[in-house]
Amino acid sequence: MATGTLTLLANSRRLTVTTILLILASETALCQQFLIPYQAVSDCGVERFFDIGSLSCVACGSNQRASETGLSCVCQAGYRILTTNGAATTCQICPTDKPVVTKDGFGCIRCPGIVTDEGTCHCPKGGILVERDVQGNLLDEARCEICNGSGPAFSAPNSNGDRCERCQASFINTSLSCVCGQNNVQAGGLCFPPNSLPTTVNSNVNFAQLALPIQSAWFVKNLYSSSAACLVFSNLTACQALGNMCVMNMHSLSSVANDACGLFNSIFRSTAALGSTQDIAYWRANLPWLFYGDQPGLASRVLQTDPLTTGFSFKGSNKNIDIKLRAAVYNARGEFLRWDKIGGGYLQLCPDTATRQQAAFYFGTAYQEKCDLSVAELLRVYPEPLFYDVFVDVGGGEDTRLLPLPTLILNQQYNGRFINQGESMKNWYLSRRVFLVDTLSGREKTLSATPKVIRVASSITIRFQLVPATQKGQVFTPLMSVSYSDVLITDTNTQTVPVSFAVEYEMDQHETRLKTDTALGVMGGVAVLHSLLKTVSWKRRTLSPNIDMETMLRFLLFYAGDLANVFFIITVGTGLYWLIFYKAQQFVSVLLPLPAQEEQFVTYIGCAFAFKAIQFLHKLIQQLSIDVFFIDWERPRSKATASEPKRDPSPVSIWRTYFVANEWNEIQTIRKISPTFQIMAVLFLLEVVGFSSLALRDPWSTLKRSPEAYTPPYSLTLRYGLAATLWLCVGLLQVKLPRAVDKIRQFVDLCSISNVSVLLLSHRCFGYYIHGRSVHGHSDTNMEEMNSNLKREAESLCGQRGLLPNTDTQTFQVSINNHLRAQYDRIREPLSRRNGPSRLVDASSANPFEQSTRAYNTLNRFLGSIIDHANRDIDYIVKDKLLFERVIGMEFLEPGEKSIFYNDEAHSFSDVLFYGNEATLLIFDTLFFCVVDLGAQSFVLAAVLTYIQQMVFRLIRNSFGRRNLASKTLVDQRFLI
Amino acid sequence: MATGTLTLLANSRRLTVTTILLILASETALCQQFLIPYQAVSDCGVERFFDIGSLSCVACGSNQRASETGLSCVCQAGYRILTTNGAATTCQICPTDKPVVTKDGFGCIRCPGIVTDEGTCHCPKGGILVERDVQGNLLDEARCEICNGSGPAFSAPNSNGDRCERCQASFINTSLSCVCGQNNVQAGGLCFPPNSLPTTVNSNVNFAQLALPIQSAWFVKNLYSSSAACLVFSNLTACQALGNMCVMNMHSLSSVANDACGLFNSIFRSTAALGSTQDIAYWRANLPWLFYGDQPGLASRVLQTDPLTTGFSFKGSNKNIDIKLRAAVYNARGEFLRWDKIGGGYLQLCPDTATRQQAAFYFGTAYQEKCDLSVAELLRVYPEPLFYDVFVDVGGGEDTRLLPLPTLILNQQYNGRFINQGESMKNWYLSRRVFLVDTLSGREKTLSATPKVIRVASSITIRFQLVPATQKGQVFTPLMSVSYSDVLITDTNTQTVPVSFAVEYEMDQHETRLKTDTALGVMGGVAVLHSLLKTVSWKRRTLSPNIDMETMLRFLLFYAGDLANVFFIITVGTGLYWLIFYKAQQFVSVLLPLPAQEEQFVTYIGCAFAFKAIQFLHKLIQQLSIDVFFIDWERPRSKATASEPKRDPSPVSIWRTYFVANEWNEIQTIRKISPTFQIMAVLFLLEVVGFSSLALRDPWSTLKRSPEAYTPPYSLTLRYGLAATLWLCVGLLQVKLPRAVDKIRQFVDLCSISNVSVLLLSHRCFGYYIHGRSVHGHSDTNMEEMNSNLKREAESLCGQRGLLPNTDTQTFQVSINNHLRAQYDRIREPLSRRNGPSRLVDASSANPFEQSTRAYNTLNRFLGSIIDHANRDIDYIVKDKLLFERVIGMEFLEPGEKSIFYNDEAHSFSDVLFYGNEATLLIFDTLFFCVVDLGAQSFVLAAVLTYIQQMVFRLIRNSFGRRNLASKTLVDQRFLI
Repeated sequence: MATGTLTLLANSRRLTVTTILLILASETALCQQFLIPYQAVSDCGVERFFDIGSLSCVACGSNQRASETGLSCVCQAGYRILTTNGAATTCQICPTDKPVVTKDGFGCIRCPGIVTDEGTCHCPKGGILVERDVQGNLLDEARCEICNGSGPAFSAPNSNGDRCERCQASFINTSLSCVCGQNNVQAGGLCFPPNSLPTTVNSNVNFAQLALPIQSAWFVKNLYSSSAACLVFSNLTACQALGNMCVMNMHSLSSVANDACGLFNSIFRSTAALGSTQDIAYWRANLPWLFYGDQPGLASRVLQTDPLTTGFSFKGSNKNIDIKLRAAVYNARGEFLRWDKIGGGYLQLCPDTATRQQAAFYFGTAYQEKCDLSVAELLRVYPEPLFYDVFVDVGGGEDTRLLPLPTLILNQQYNGRFINQGESMKNWYLSRRVFLVDTLSGREKTLSATPKVIRVASSITIRFQLVPATQKGQVFTPLMSVSYSDVLITDTNTQTVPVSFAVEYEMDQHETRLKTDTALGVMGGVAVLHSLLKTVSWKRRTLSPNIDMETMLRFLLFYAGDLANVFFIITVGTGLYWLIFYKAQQFVSVLLPLPAQEEQFVTYIGCAFAFKAIQFLHKLIQQLSIDVFFIDWERPRSKATASEPKRDPSPVSIWRTYFVANEWNEIQTIRKISPTFQIMAVLFLLEVVGFSSLALRDPWSTLKRSPEAYTPPYSLTLRYGLAATLWLCVGLLQVKLPRAVDKIRQFVDLCSISNVSVLLLSHRCFGYYIHGRSVHGHSDTNMEEMNSNLKREAESLCGQRGLLPNTDTQTFQVSINNHLRAQYDRIREPLSRRNGPSRLVDASSANPFEQSTRAYNTLNRFLGSIIDHANRDIDYIVKDKLLFERVIGMEFLEPGEKSIFYNDEAHSFSDVLFYGNEATLLIFDTLFFCVVDLGAQSFVLAAVLTYIQQMVFRLIRNSFGRRNLASKTLVDQRFLI
Repeated sequence: MATGTLTLLANSRRLTVTTILLILASETALCQQFLIPYQAVSDCGVERFFDIGSLSCVACGSNQRASETGLSCVCQAGYRILTTNGAATTCQICPTDKPVVTKDGFGCIRCPGIVTDEGTCHCPKGGILVERDVQGNLLDEARCEICNGSGPAFSAPNSNGDRCERCQASFINTSLSCVCGQNNVQAGGLCFPPNSLPTTVNSNVNFAQLALPIQSAWFVKNLYSSSAACLVFSNLTACQALGNMCVMNMHSLSSVANDACGLFNSIFRSTAALGSTQDIAYWRANLPWLFYGDQPGLASRVLQTDPLTTGFSFKGSNKNIDIKLRAAVYNARGEFLRWDKIGGGYLQLCPDTATRQQAAFYFGTAYQEKCDLSVAELLRVYPEPLFYDVFVDVGGGEDTRLLPLPTLILNQQYNGRFINQGESMKNWYLSRRVFLVDTLSGREKTLSATPKVIRVASSITIRFQLVPATQKGQVFTPLMSVSYSDVLITDTNTQTVPVSFAVEYEMDQHETRLKTDTALGVMGGVAVLHSLLKTVSWKRRTLSPNIDMETMLRFLLFYAGDLANVFFIITVGTGLYWLIFYKAQQFVSVLLPLPAQEEQFVTYIGCAFAFKAIQFLHKLIQQLSIDVFFIDWERPRSKATASEPKRDPSPVSIWRTYFVANEWNEIQTIRKISPTFQIMAVLFLLEVVGFSSLALRDPWSTLKRSPEAYTPPYSLTLRYGLAATLWLCVGLLQVKLPRAVDKIRQFVDLCSISNVSVLLLSHRCFGYYIHGRSVHGHSDTNMEEMNSNLKREAESLCGQRGLLPNTDTQTFQVSINNHLRAQYDRIREPLSRRNGPSRLVDASSANPFEQSTRAYNTLNRFLGSIIDHANRDIDYIVKDKLLFERVIGMEFLEPGEKSIFYNDEAHSFSDVLFYGNEATLLIFDTLFFCVVDLGAQSFVLAAVLTYIQQMVFRLIRNSFGRRNLASKTLVDQRFLI
């Protein structure tokens, strides 16, 4: 063969033509693409082998068959290898005098015993096959030798069956020979003395979720031998293996004493004399620590008594956010593998980048990762389970000390009852040691079979609890809760298992809740007082003496508004509190409420919104039914200049009234803020600038998160606090910033210029008056005069605009007496009837159109005369409001004989417009935005719905307001555009 | 020991007291928490072992030391094991006559040769140690036997050195004994004949990115022997191993013929006689297929000649989106491991869930996953590289055929030059076989050392190219590009490597681009004509005869607007085309342009936006400088009724003009759509309803994606197409939906009711006229008369509102002649001077205020007289516009002696308002939104900025428009509220 190669090399020059031809051939082949058939190793059968060079099946040489792997050929039975160079082999049949092939395949030999199907010799049990002598010379006839099992040789055949070696120590110990003996028990390759354990063990693994006990091949093989080796020989690995079987059985104890945990417990009890390990009573020497005791209340003592020695701190020089965990790792056979630091993807079955997974081990970051794992993948990656004893690493530096992390196995049963699934900590049974995926215990017949059931740690949660009122970031011993899922294997390729890993942080919210409730109680009480005051004020303003149903209703409506404010203040305060204290703290002293602890908070927000909506609707309806009247001061000119008996020389133009009414109509829905800008600004801050990152459940206050970083879930509390605060801040900024145009002041000016006064009655006997009498006497004039009037006024050449001489005050709150109101109502009566059922009107009366115009004129004259003090019966006085009256929004004096006009520089008539109710509207919008967001977790949706809400209510206010205005002032709706 | 256990069991009852005491002790211990010290195995030293039960170090028994693992104790040298039960062992010193311990540790023996440090016997090379006879009886003195290496025994010591076995076949083949012989070459456990290969091989691996050649321990050990075994013995595994070394060397060829690829190539050439495998010329029998040929242009022939036999289809019964890949997997030693189906996380180093990773293998989903991997993790997970020969699985069913996937190694060098990094396909050298992580070749001294450099496939891209004009979803042979990174190991714990995996789909965009450019050319030409027409129209309307600079400028401005429309139509069309055709196709016939292919498209959008902005600003400026005049038809009443010489009995009230002016001011910026609603609706559709999912680079058209599913990157083209289409649709819907209030019609009505006409001159000699003469003669009257007038009109008791008798047409386009314009300008002169430099005005003139009022009155009378045909010199005719005139927006007749009033029922005067330019505004907004989104990839930001843009321009239009209105009509700005 070596010479053949040399020839090849020499020939390479001569082969050029062939090569060219081959290349040409390949060019043709190119056009048909390089397609090759797919052949798997198993496709080749026994007569061909899989050529890994060409990835195809190639026939074996003569007298050959494919090897077991299928990747090469071997000689058929009875044929020996004559020559081989690794690739090519020639086989030769053995001569009849030496008909059997040696084990190495190269020689032929005679056989003393049986010849196997493969054509090799076979010796009886306990014997070894000898084919060569000591120097390696092949014998003519193989020998079967019996190993000397008695002392001092103590030898037995090795696993190959070709050599005698010293047998296993337990045989020698137990039976003083290499045979276990009749009374002893041989199990798992060991030999045990009799009666050391119950003769039968329960090898079932109970898959409780499926109600399916399976006789596990692993348990059958190892449970008895591990228990016995642990008990009899104190074999450390065997003890661990026994413990692992108990863990695979969910730590479950029952009356059956011979299952894994029962055996473990028996051994635990019977080895009490060996003492405990590391001064921990639950941890017996040689045994793994699986159970905490079963004293009542032990769990809460373990979990809530002593804090960890080191505190956590988010910032500053003592910054300490690393959760340091360590695990001792064992395999199923009980071998100790290594100490591992827990970090990154440790204990996390879901795949993700190391950076994101590491976030689980930064204190304060609420971590949750969920995914569905393919069962096929699990079977591939986890052929056997690993077992973890998890510790918390406390006290850094050289002298690392470990605190065992208590584990709560939710699947743990005690006499068939799930004992750890309740909420109450005092009933819990803590334990130790977990695994992630167990594909071993569910194998029923053999260990190489596909498991019937696998068990996956489908939910692992590590929960930290803050020591109450700590200022140093101290936490109690954390708890790891593990919940396993039993998965019945049906179709591995399509089956998936949902798994999750979470790290949670909680603190006792009892105190916070107490404080909130206290605040709610106190402020609720104040709200009652305030609402009572408002009701009283309303009673006075309507001048109704009796306490009737309507009064009660009003009180409830006012109370709804006040209560809404109370809830709003408390919820925003709470949200802001968490936002500031959680995100800004250095040493950890508060932790966010868990989603389950937020229910009360969400209820409060709901209350705030509901009550606010009631208040808002109440105000809206009030505004849509106010009384308005425009008093035109203009008198026909001819009357003043000429004394001729001309009947009606030139009527006073109505256009000024139209103008004023039109403007009033327009300012109905203007607000101190621009609602759309508000929405856009808040959306911009939250979504584009990235303020929404502040609502994530972690202690960082950066706005922009890298897309590679882990994104924790949102906290409802923070989200609400953030959104409400931003909304209020942007709103306040808009209110406080100087505005280019003050529409309200413009309107007052317009009244003055147009010689039209406005009387607004928001209650029966209370309202507002805008004094708009022109200082020039006439306003119904041409451009020339108008301009010169304006110019004169700018140069202060004429009187002041105020109601009282030499004053500037044009706006008043008015408290009118019953008499005036009665007169007013009487005159207005035809106007209001216009909207009533006209069919019932007395047919004899003039056409309603003329009637109402007459009423308008009468009312105009009547009101003008009153303002002019021209009416003796009905007079009024002007006075300032007391400071206290302003504060509580109520008048102390009831209008007696004379009505009272209170000076009101603050344009408080805007209270009957959206403009004067900015606070209510802003809070309503805020709550609307937040409630939608809490429901949908989407700021964009909240913004869109808030916009629609605003649009709808503005539309309602505008159209109904216009209708009201038209009906009250007789200005045709066509002029209100 | 067995009896001891029984005692323990018996004692368990008696031990209860002790147990209780222990439990009590534990209760005290509880208060100090269960802290244990951390001890690693290595902390225990030689005298203690690590007790895996207690996780602490425990002292070994006497005469013992810790075993190598540190987990148990063994007897010191010279001591034999007396008894052992697995846990407890007693050791006994060997007697002086048998001072050496046997290999199994239980016996003592005399030694014929050297005694090692461990206290066991050692035989010279070629000899074996015999301690027991064949039956397993321990000898008194051990023997060293020499194996018989010559034929026919051909035996040599086994690896344990305790038995003679048949020696390796190559020794026998080469030297006919178990000694390799003087002239032969022994390497890698094999024996080769001399001169089969160069005597020295180059074992360097060249890490070209670091310019660092490293003598690799793996290459030193295996390169020569693999090459020789491949060449001499045709050993399949050795050939694969050699090929793998070439792959680890980046397939790089150079003049050095004795490096891995050089050797591979020599063997490839010298074994030409063996012929090729599977009819593929580049694939030599026995060897792996590593290289395609080096003929020029081979790459493009391979990649662009023949399509795959099966086409891809997104929908329907033939749905076929699975990219089926298969890989033959080899390990570094050249062993064939298995055939793997490629799917899920295969070839992807970044961790993610199986669902997401599977998305990479669905045709049409642009897939990209990037992450940074920790080097420490890579070293842990990939102790040695695996090599993949990747195939495409074509033709399903039984008869699977495989198409080798060509690979482009970007790191491949040819004589030191990177040959595959250019764009041009014709220079590429295709190859096969890739690995993911190679931590093997960078080990310098020994194979167990930490590697000095590792190599990671940092970027793997599989690229599919669609067959041009296919209707069956056919693609060419895909290409896998691999780029490796060389990572110098410095600090494994902090080092990271960025890696990425991508699947890309491309089609030849040449044709699309051609079509787009053709459309652009054609429409651009039409746009020139249209702009010329507009310029001519503008010339006519200004009645300026000369072609001057301004004409040129106007042409350019018009052209900008038209070009903007052309670009807009083309880009939206293209976007929509992709959106529809890509997402809706069944058989794949188009694929999205790659980001690199979108540059031209983005440029077009930029052009559209820039030109549209110019047009918009031009229109804005035009609108801000139009001429407006309100003609008041009201005449003082007294004049009409009395003939007395009364000078000015009651002036005509200006308030109607104020009212009309105020309304005109208000309608300046109203639009056919609500811009804010528009933004909110689009945002809602995109972000909340989830239309934005349609812009993802995958063929699915579902709106809601599961958070667990893979999210491909966005396509700029689709994003633009989607956003623009949605914006336009919502806009058109808003325009077309019936509106509650038509403000424009309201304004015309108002004019009529208020007896005020409006003349608007948008050009020097062209404009609009709204005839507002009251049918009642007078409008300046009180409410009574107003209401009755309105009522009479409603009952059709009075004439019609039209300019001509018995017509209804109130709105006209007017073409005035130069004469009229000159008169108009002359009268207006004092008005316009008012805004000019007043200091220069002739001091003798009257005060400018009075002057302008006079001019106002004059103009009012002048215009009134013209409308009334009262002016002989200046008259006008009323006519209908021709249809064609309407269409091209130009008048054919130049106003000669008489001006021309064209009936215009369509209220085209709104062209000087935002209202009449909705198309321009809508397109401008659309483009603004899209451009911001393309820049920032955020619909929210685009929405916010569009809102601000609209607000700013509305503010500008409003305030400057008000100023213009005030200056042109003399209405004080205070009345424009």
